[in-house]
Amino acid sequence: MKLAVIAILLGASLAYGQQQGDFKPATSNVLDAEYPKVDSSSRVEIRFKAPDATKVKLNFWSGPKVDMEKQADGFWTVTTPPMAPGLHYYTLNVDGAEVSDPASTAYFGGSKWASAVEVPEAGVNYYEPTDVPHGQVREVWYHSSVTGTWRHALVYLPPAYDTQTKTRYPVLYLQHGGGEDETGWIRQGKANFILDNLIASGNTTPMIIVMANGYASRAGYVVPDLTGKPFGSPEMMKVMQERMGAFEDDMTQALIPFIDKTFRTLPDRDHRAMAGLSMGGMQTFQVTFDHLDLFSYIGGFSGAANVFAMGNNKLDTKTAFHGAMADPAAFAKRVHLLWIGVGTDEPARMKSGLESLHAALDEGKIQHVFYESPGTNHEWQTWRRDLKDFAPRLFQSAGQKSASAQER
Amino acid sequence: MKLAVIAILLGASLAYGQQQGDFKPATSNVLDAEYPKVDSSSRVEIRFKAPDATKVKLNFWSGPKVDMEKQADGFWTVTTPPMAPGLHYYTLNVDGAEVSDPASTAYFGGSKWASAVEVPEAGVNYYEPTDVPHGQVREVWYHSSVTGTWRHALVYLPPAYDTQTKTRYPVLYLQHGGGEDETGWIRQGKANFILDNLIASGNTTPMIIVMANGYASRAGYVVPDLTGKPFGSPEMMKVMQERMGAFEDDMTQALIPFIDKTFRTLPDRDHRAMAGLSMGGMQTFQVTFDHLDLFSYIGGFSGAANVFAMGNNKLDTKTAFHGAMADPAAFAKRVHLLWIGVGTDEPARMKSGLESLHAALDEGKIQHVFYESPGTNHEWQTWRRDLKDFAPRLFQSAGQKSASAQER
Repeated sequence: MKLAVIAILLGASLAYGQQQGDFKPATSNVLDAEYPKVDSSSRVEIRFKAPDATKVKLNFWSGPKVDMEKQADGFWTVTTPPMAPGLHYYTLNVDGAEVSDPASTAYFGGSKWASAVEVPEAGVNYYEPTDVPHGQVREVWYHSSVTGTWRHALVYLPPAYDTQTKTRYPVLYLQHGGGEDETGWIRQGKANFILDNLIASGNTTPMIIVMANGYASRAGYVVPDLTGKPFGSPEMMKVMQERMGAFEDDMTQALIPFIDKTFRTLPDRDHRAMAGLSMGGMQTFQVTFDHLDLFSYIGGFSGAANVFAMGNNKLDTKTAFHGAMADPAAFAKRVHLLWIGVGTDEPARMKSGLESLHAALDEGKIQHVFYESPGTNHEWQTWRRDLKDFAPRLFQSAGQKSASAQER
Repeated sequence: MKLAVIAILLGASLAYGQQQGDFKPATSNVLDAEYPKVDSSSRVEIRFKAPDATKVKLNFWSGPKVDMEKQADGFWTVTTPPMAPGLHYYTLNVDGAEVSDPASTAYFGGSKWASAVEVPEAGVNYYEPTDVPHGQVREVWYHSSVTGTWRHALVYLPPAYDTQTKTRYPVLYLQHGGGEDETGWIRQGKANFILDNLIASGNTTPMIIVMANGYASRAGYVVPDLTGKPFGSPEMMKVMQERMGAFEDDMTQALIPFIDKTFRTLPDRDHRAMAGLSMGGMQTFQVTFDHLDLFSYIGGFSGAANVFAMGNNKLDTKTAFHGAMADPAAFAKRVHLLWIGVGTDEPARMKSGLESLHAALDEGKIQHVFYESPGTNHEWQTWRRDLKDFAPRLFQSAGQKSASAQER
């Protein structure tokens, strides 16, 4: 109490951005960077040097957008209200320039190397490196005859891959969201640590995870000039559709054969899954339903086929997806898992799209899992939880699978 | 000629940063970013949106530092004179804030995720992905009892590693420079492609390359507050020395045992090399000369033991390095390769330090290689060339080694 009084008397220094509390440097900071800081009530303090700027704004993409306050030493500071746990993208607007914070690790999101701050979730370590056997993440380059280029992908191999050299493994193809790239699931999502911990706990089948770049262009395709076309414009959607098609061909004609040739996979549909977040969820529905000969596990994390249109245009399970769901019993036999998830704090359009899909599947008696991540937005904490719920359901025998209380 | 006249008449538009010539988006840009652009005479054009800024400066760390010009549309532009080939770090100063260009891939340098532009070198593709067998880069995490933490390293494995499962390989430990991290040699240096191409050409022994993070702190060590202490201050040097010692212990006590346990290495000094650039070169000299029982190949790329002090304090080969060089013949037998290199356009202090070391080694009749990269600065193009010259000299029989014309 006395300290608090002294702190009030020293108000000038408090106004300089020095908050009371137990603020510590975020784990997402670069080495030795003191800011951003996070306290035990999940408030975030940001500090940024811009001595000659007139205005600096902090822009959390799914969180507070606030003006920062200029201090006498040329630094701008601000402290946010308590935030949800997880990794939050942000940028800083400096006199109209949208830039990253040099104190933050750079994460590829929003089509650029953006900043983010990791807000710990109390009592949770499933996405941390713990004292369990660790798998390896490999970078591979494969030549794609679809794109005519060398393409980069990341591949997670489970802990025992190098020592049990006779074992073959099932494969999960796991895709990032719009504006992200193949590094997202490792850097932001910590998918490798999530799998290490799940496998060590004994309830998840050791598997290979392949993370490809979801943006592909067919050889010779020239992106039209989109200058002045707004996000989501018909011209932009056409580019996106062209790229979705190119990605589908790249994945099925170049990537999967490369992976099955390069790693000890179980190269059949019963041992191949695909999931993705947001745009990656849309891609998952497109690729898997076009190629049910290749996949038998399907996951849409905050994104699935056509979810944006679903508010008005409910999925008809009798005709959708080339009629794959027309016979619910046959579908349940063919597709071992259909999984969709959404964060309860996601934007209404996203939530209603997934909920509408869920309702349509229920109505059509299509066996599926619907998972809701409590209190999280269209952000990586939702997708980390999705993977934690999704991965243990993969490549299980039929008996184990139907034992899950959340199955529908 | 007529076009040029029209261009002059349209001068207003030319002044808007639209240069004549054959400018193309740099390969270092993020997907779909039109700028930075590079033309065939190696000029670089930068464009950056900052509508409300008063002043924007372009700062190439080893190149032009120039004011950018504000255009009517809120973008700032500038075109540089022709630049040396290679990857050039830069930042932008926006009203006093030093920030990265969102159009550039982020490369970890200067202790932050900085921007860089790749200027092609005509007629050269040794660091590009070509149609040869490709090795894989693996991310590994190892627990270090020295630091008390999980540490991240990258490991390049040669193309045949997975298929020739009986073969064991020599290992090169390859370190980044000050302010960089373990990703530098792959992202900036393209070491994997350099090795792929060298191995495919048949004149380089297939090897494993291990890239660790050169910054380590012993468990419990607290970095003192360096606020207000200038770069290179005694307080900062003390932190650096402490970290150099911690890194040496981490490397010899945690990393090397982990690598030899995890990969099919040839775990002896005859098959273990270390090299590094700048700070990494200093670390290489410290680690290898303290542990000649572990290493027999040594490379200093624009950095070596104590080079900064050498202008005044010439190396005495009779006493230096615990007397390891006192007997030149014995040293040549024990250390199979001592290699130092520098770019001819590096800052005088760096160049004179390496030249002085080279002269002292000549004077002491110490067999070594001195390599000069023509026309390049303290930058990655120097270090790519260094690796291209250094790697083929590793793990060769004595007969092959002495055949090199550049040996001294």
